[in-house]
Amino acid sequence: MKVGFVGLGVMGGPMAGHLLRAGHEVVVWNRTPAKADRWVAEGAERADSLTRLAVVCGFVFLCVGRTEDVEDCLAAMTPAARPGTLFVDHSTISAAGARSIHARLAEQGLRFLDAPITGGSMGAEKGTLTIFVGGEEADFQEALPVMQAYGRRIERVGPAGAGQTLKAANQIAVGGALLGLCESLALVKRAGLDVAQARELLASGAAGSWAFENYGPKILNEDWSPGFSVANQHKDFGYCRELAAELGLPDPLTETAMQVMQDLLDRGEGELTTAAAYRLYLEDGSP
Amino acid sequence: MKVGFVGLGVMGGPMAGHLLRAGHEVVVWNRTPAKADRWVAEGAERADSLTRLAVVCGFVFLCVGRTEDVEDCLAAMTPAARPGTLFVDHSTISAAGARSIHARLAEQGLRFLDAPITGGSMGAEKGTLTIFVGGEEADFQEALPVMQAYGRRIERVGPAGAGQTLKAANQIAVGGALLGLCESLALVKRAGLDVAQARELLASGAAGSWAFENYGPKILNEDWSPGFSVANQHKDFGYCRELAAELGLPDPLTETAMQVMQDLLDRGEGELTTAAAYRLYLEDGSP
Repeated sequence: MKVGFVGLGVMGGPMAGHLLRAGHEVVVWNRTPAKADRWVAEGAERADSLTRLAVVCGFVFLCVGRTEDVEDCLAAMTPAARPGTLFVDHSTISAAGARSIHARLAEQGLRFLDAPITGGSMGAEKGTLTIFVGGEEADFQEALPVMQAYGRRIERVGPAGAGQTLKAANQIAVGGALLGLCESLALVKRAGLDVAQARELLASGAAGSWAFENYGPKILNEDWSPGFSVANQHKDFGYCRELAAELGLPDPLTETAMQVMQDLLDRGEGELTTAAAYRLYLEDGSP
Repeated sequence: MKVGFVGLGVMGGPMAGHLLRAGHEVVVWNRTPAKADRWVAEGAERADSLTRLAVVCGFVFLCVGRTEDVEDCLAAMTPAARPGTLFVDHSTISAAGARSIHARLAEQGLRFLDAPITGGSMGAEKGTLTIFVGGEEADFQEALPVMQAYGRRIERVGPAGAGQTLKAANQIAVGGALLGLCESLALVKRAGLDVAQARELLASGAAGSWAFENYGPKILNEDWSPGFSVANQHKDFGYCRELAAELGLPDPLTETAMQVMQDLLDRGEGELTTAAAYRLYLEDGSP
């Protein structure tokens, strides 16, 4: 059975590559066709359209951008899809959106899993992603062996939308640690202490986090390349906020971190790493 | 030379115990005298007053509460202290307060190091604390071998006040990770997902932190005993805010986290662990 892969960006591209190396017949499509060239050279079949991809594949993975991008791709594919086609969406979109897509596809005799990923571009390249899956258990069991080509930890966490819900929770926790890192090291810098010594000392104790280990060195090197971009973090916080509102839950941290990302966007810094918040702190203040 | 220890609480008590076991002659004082009993039984000498302690010790450690508590203790000791007495303050107080105490004691021919600690009650009991020291290098070198009785990582991070500055930075980073944990797991809980599965999955990825490892289990067990209390975290955030204002630095995370701690204080929950913020999220909302 041919496997479709829609969206060959910094995450999707390497994931499609892992599917190829695992021996799958992979059919690829990307909005910007040139991004498919590398994977076609590695043996993927190029689909000229999403309709064509849907016709030839019984299994379709998506790794695109926002809820509306997923909706658009599915709208182009579902009329042509074979009955029972399983769509697995690795994009980070809204949990409500994922639930609604799931219900709509089910009415059309199609299947859908929300399966957002974490682990960054490094995880995509190494094939060590973590995948939070929401949807039917049987569909999950069917997709699992295929996803193992690029995922190391792959767990079903609940019904439709549960994967996106856990991804939102993940982004909130990442955001807290990241903002803590940036606000903390900016204070150290402005106070004239040694930022490298501080990062190392703080990382070894109760302040320690993945963010300290991975974003700390970027701050020290003033390397603002993503990694995970401000624009993407801002997008994801929007889904966190939407979900919190739906659940009637206060979200003060999300609001605060989202505002910092908004400030960076307003400066035209959406394509920088989220750790660039460190610089924002230092440039905004007047000592 | 006798070593004084002032403040035998959950941190100071075990620290004084380590000094005893390292072979020091330790003279102890505590505001509530009964708290000294255990250490007197283990071989410490009890001082009836701070004046008496200052008279017999050339080296005095403090581990009390707020800036004003340190000021009060020093006011009682400095008139009686021998010239050159070295005071080492392990309390978490304001950086400006530490600088001012340092300057005042220097005028009196006395010496002062700000040396706040991290590592929690467990670190105090095991003798594995991290200590951030501000002050003169020579004074640091003199205190270092004594502090090694209870500290594993002990670093001078700059001049007077630098230790408290780094402690403030530490509390900001801890606060971000903690708030991220609580806001994240509250979302998971309210959405009806499995909180234990979520904690384990999130902790293994980019959301991972000391807070997830150490406070996550408390949340799962609904164990709100401190650890580190809401009241202490709130106190420390006050010092973070003061320092940020002094440095002209924005502090949105500190403000947000401090407000959450204030909300817990307003509910009379100051003596709970900071992870009780999780419960606050869930009780405040109306789904």
